[in-house]
Amino acid sequence: MKHRLSVFFEPESVAIIGASGTVSKPGYDVIRNILANDFKGKIYLVNPKGGEILGLPVQPSVGSLPDGIDLGIIILPAKETPQALRECIDKGIKHFVLSAGGFAEFDEYGARIQQELTGIIREKGIRVLGPNTSGHTSTPHQFTSTFFPLGKIRRGKVSYIAQTGNFATHSMKYILTGEHFGVARVIGLGNKIDIEESEALEFLGEDPETNAIIMYLESIKRPRRLLEVAREVTRRKPVIMLKSGATEAGRHAAVAHTAAMAAEDRLVDGFLRQAGIVRIRDYTHLILAGKALSMLPLPKKNRVSFLAPSGAMLVCLSDLCIRVGLDIPELAPETVKKLQDITPPYIRMRNPVDIWAAASRGIELGYREGMEAVLNDPSIDAVVPILMLTKDTGIPHYSFIVELAKKFPEKPILVTFSGDKYYMEECRSVIEPLGVPTFFEIEEPFEILSILVRCARAMNRP
Amino acid sequence: MKHRLSVFFEPESVAIIGASGTVSKPGYDVIRNILANDFKGKIYLVNPKGGEILGLPVQPSVGSLPDGIDLGIIILPAKETPQALRECIDKGIKHFVLSAGGFAEFDEYGARIQQELTGIIREKGIRVLGPNTSGHTSTPHQFTSTFFPLGKIRRGKVSYIAQTGNFATHSMKYILTGEHFGVARVIGLGNKIDIEESEALEFLGEDPETNAIIMYLESIKRPRRLLEVAREVTRRKPVIMLKSGATEAGRHAAVAHTAAMAAEDRLVDGFLRQAGIVRIRDYTHLILAGKALSMLPLPKKNRVSFLAPSGAMLVCLSDLCIRVGLDIPELAPETVKKLQDITPPYIRMRNPVDIWAAASRGIELGYREGMEAVLNDPSIDAVVPILMLTKDTGIPHYSFIVELAKKFPEKPILVTFSGDKYYMEECRSVIEPLGVPTFFEIEEPFEILSILVRCARAMNRP
Repeated sequence: MKHRLSVFFEPESVAIIGASGTVSKPGYDVIRNILANDFKGKIYLVNPKGGEILGLPVQPSVGSLPDGIDLGIIILPAKETPQALRECIDKGIKHFVLSAGGFAEFDEYGARIQQELTGIIREKGIRVLGPNTSGHTSTPHQFTSTFFPLGKIRRGKVSYIAQTGNFATHSMKYILTGEHFGVARVIGLGNKIDIEESEALEFLGEDPETNAIIMYLESIKRPRRLLEVAREVTRRKPVIMLKSGATEAGRHAAVAHTAAMAAEDRLVDGFLRQAGIVRIRDYTHLILAGKALSMLPLPKKNRVSFLAPSGAMLVCLSDLCIRVGLDIPELAPETVKKLQDITPPYIRMRNPVDIWAAASRGIELGYREGMEAVLNDPSIDAVVPILMLTKDTGIPHYSFIVELAKKFPEKPILVTFSGDKYYMEECRSVIEPLGVPTFFEIEEPFEILSILVRCARAMNRP
Repeated sequence: MKHRLSVFFEPESVAIIGASGTVSKPGYDVIRNILANDFKGKIYLVNPKGGEILGLPVQPSVGSLPDGIDLGIIILPAKETPQALRECIDKGIKHFVLSAGGFAEFDEYGARIQQELTGIIREKGIRVLGPNTSGHTSTPHQFTSTFFPLGKIRRGKVSYIAQTGNFATHSMKYILTGEHFGVARVIGLGNKIDIEESEALEFLGEDPETNAIIMYLESIKRPRRLLEVAREVTRRKPVIMLKSGATEAGRHAAVAHTAAMAAEDRLVDGFLRQAGIVRIRDYTHLILAGKALSMLPLPKKNRVSFLAPSGAMLVCLSDLCIRVGLDIPELAPETVKKLQDITPPYIRMRNPVDIWAAASRGIELGYREGMEAVLNDPSIDAVVPILMLTKDTGIPHYSFIVELAKKFPEKPILVTFSGDKYYMEECRSVIEPLGVPTFFEIEEPFEILSILVRCARAMNRP
């Protein structure tokens, strides 16, 4: 049985109330986005001016629409939204995205309109995303209601729930231009007058297109319900959350306030732990964790091996592992023997692996044999190569890393670099589209691996 | 009066004992590096084979060298090093870089040779950098003794002291290929049988070419002396240190050990605080702090204003500011008025600055006027714009940021981005060479600013 929110993600027909012929208006860009994503359903446009926009005919009023369209996107000013909503309901539309801002987040007048919308929802039993949302996206259905110009959105297995517009707009832009992973669903909740995070999470929990869920929330509307849903979903799929909302920090950064926030923050910590949701702290990790979850299996446990071309890095990164809760176990004697076989006798191999001398006999050989040895070790759950890339010491064929990732599908490999930025970018552009994530800063694979370990623990909790 | 280590950084003549004609051998690459940096002094090469290397004549023995060469770089195997050293001393050389490894860090035999070297140093009063060092660099004198192939090294005002080779090799390679700042001096200490961190710091403290000092240490050889030197130097120049050395972590990540390390680590914390040295934790910050110190003044206090194009970012970054000890003060009424003047009336401007609506009337205008307003506010010490860059909303002329940096030379501006990676790279390549640092991840400007604040506090401590 389909989830009651499914229609939002696989509409067969959509009406855009407030379609615009003016380039770079939201009512124009939303159409451009829908076309850029090759939406296969029917598209109806409404604007009193009629005519044609981007080759599609425009209806002069909602009344001219056929009955029973799946989804209405109302992209009109706040004060015109309730009337348009009523007209759409009269035409049998039951699911809506309300894009405009200017409601409760704006002023008293907007709050009254929002109240009116809430009344309509209760009375008519329709379902609403927003208002004040930057829309939603469903790549398996090649559909989006986003009005921020994004073009074709890459398909992937990770879904995002974001309270505010930024994620669905600029951060998605960054993912599309700077990263090599895609998304399944993106849900911008906006003012949450109807659909809120617990229902969105419930949908994604059942969604076969979604393997992992990442949430950005500033407030939790129905904590009890979210706890109930999350406790169940998080046993099947990793769920990560950036929960901010220490808004007092923005106003008064006094120590007293910080202390108060820290206390409240501990409550949030406890709540999320109970819910099986893994909390993260950095906005950047919303993106990097999304990349990792798109490409990698979860590690069995927290036991990492890493291979670095420098003693300094081995030491610094060992410190970091401890800080983020990763274990660096001793290797099996057979593993040590294999590592010793590729290394000059004056270096005693152990975990973490000083790969410098082995790699100086051949970068690819050193890293390939070294990585294979530790990947074969039953006491190792994940491997991070710090790949030495400078023309002077030789550039390897990057594909050996992809081959190792295929050979050890149950062990995450997270790649980072040391050396020449040009080759770092080159390596990234080769191996990421083939499913091996890379990270420019050497701390990041460890920080992200630690998030994956916490996800695995949450899923396997008693 | 010149510091006793000055000769290392401005030699007028250098002899390379162990010069090699074989491409990619250290004894070859060191010559290539010296030539690539346009060293103006005399270069003497020694190799029993004689002949010519890279157009320079080769002497068959140390005995054939003229008397009184300033600096000898001995790049021979460990066991041949003492004999070569004695021969050089006989020719009046008093300053040496001993490049080879294979000493105490290697085995018993190497330790005995190292002991022999120590004896020679005591007996003859010579000065030695290394052994087991990747060399040193002095861009004001266009000189380097580094054998890792780096080519021309960019000149700057920050100097590095690194215990191990990695910094002078791969990390320098990254700085040269991926960043837009340069260095004054880089000192690879190696096994520290003579010159150690306190003397290197003392030299850099007096060095007019060095404005800031960044250290990477795993051990401290003479803590009392370092404390004494650092307490004085840190009142005049910022000194930052990544002190790792929790090497037990590499072997046993057990909780018990972690606790023990944490205790020991607190001692290191206290030591560095007393010394006025700002401790950092991430390897990546060695590079990013170097960039910031190369380009920026230190902030007067910790009061930051930032401008973000998204409510989510404002909230997340406010949390981050509190976490790293930055204050987000209220703005003066005049500042608020200026901000309100460029913003639609429905957004109430305050600190941090929601620049979205202002910028959507014109990216450059919004950020320029917004930044100028907060830069003019006497309660603000530093400004971070999160610059919105996507073609769809318009790409500004990046130069306005450089102009603002010139207009407010006493207030650090650290730039980060939201949007399209292509334009982020473009902006970076325009403004960094003109002295405004950029950071790809939105957390980094705040983390680095917090380091600068700690530097300023250390310099102004009672």
